[in-house]
Amino acid sequence: MNKMLTAAALVAAFAALPAQAQFAKAEDAVAYRQGAYRVLAHHFGSLGAMANDKAPFDAARAAADGEVLAALAKLPAAGFVAGAESKAAKPAIWTEADKFKQLDQDLVSAAGKLAEAAKSGDLAQIKAAFGPTAKTCKACHDEFRQK
Amino acid sequence: MNKMLTAAALVAAFAALPAQAQFAKAEDAVAYRQGAYRVLAHHFGSLGAMANDKAPFDAARAAADGEVLAALAKLPAAGFVAGAESKAAKPAIWTEADKFKQLDQDLVSAAGKLAEAAKSGDLAQIKAAFGPTAKTCKACHDEFRQK
Repeated sequence: MNKMLTAAALVAAFAALPAQAQFAKAEDAVAYRQGAYRVLAHHFGSLGAMANDKAPFDAARAAADGEVLAALAKLPAAGFVAGAESKAAKPAIWTEADKFKQLDQDLVSAAGKLAEAAKSGDLAQIKAAFGPTAKTCKACHDEFRQK
Repeated sequence: MNKMLTAAALVAAFAALPAQAQFAKAEDAVAYRQGAYRVLAHHFGSLGAMANDKAPFDAARAAADGEVLAALAKLPAAGFVAGAESKAAKPAIWTEADKFKQLDQDLVSAAGKLAEAAKSGDLAQIKAAFGPTAKTCKACHDEFRQK
């Protein structure tokens, strides 16, 4: 019976996976999404320092940050496979999956716009696109991240 | 005197940084590079499973894996700032920095070629490009990663 349950749980876990990401163990999925968020946050922070006049504006660096941010924003969602719980992740991520996916898509969309702004080399455009992106981080953290 | 040394170490750390990445604390740099390697390894593993006939070939997935791999390969080097030691990192990374940078560049180059191969949708090309990339991982791990 236990074996059957385990097999069923495994099937359920894989059914929940997008084609791009399959993880051998739940902890791999957790480490993957945490790694992606960490790298993303670094480049977002770098853009934020420039957008908020806390670091000198460097157009090449901003464009590179934006590119990495937009690419990385698409990744962490795949790491929230069934059973891959963590201290930071509220269970609502799985019980309110549609809402979580929507907030994740909001991040992907805002990060894409911020990357476009960063590519322009125009600090005013970056300043305009930074706030909306930061709001998508906060909206999801408020709802789905353990304090 | 201690304060002077700390300030000097800080200046040295920032002098060693490429423009793209500045870290408030050494541990941020460690977490950044480890996160980047983790995400990179996942997508490399996904490509490897297909290249070694251990997973069904999915051209779209392979192309996406290659794209992420090539983008991520460029990131971790920036996290090896002066003073950002870790259990996995041998001190030679800093004392033989030129050699380390060369092996890192080998990865960037091989990952770029693997991404091109993956984009072609031709499994034979992926198989041909996978081994050389794996060799760049091993060459650097043998030299610079603690066992």
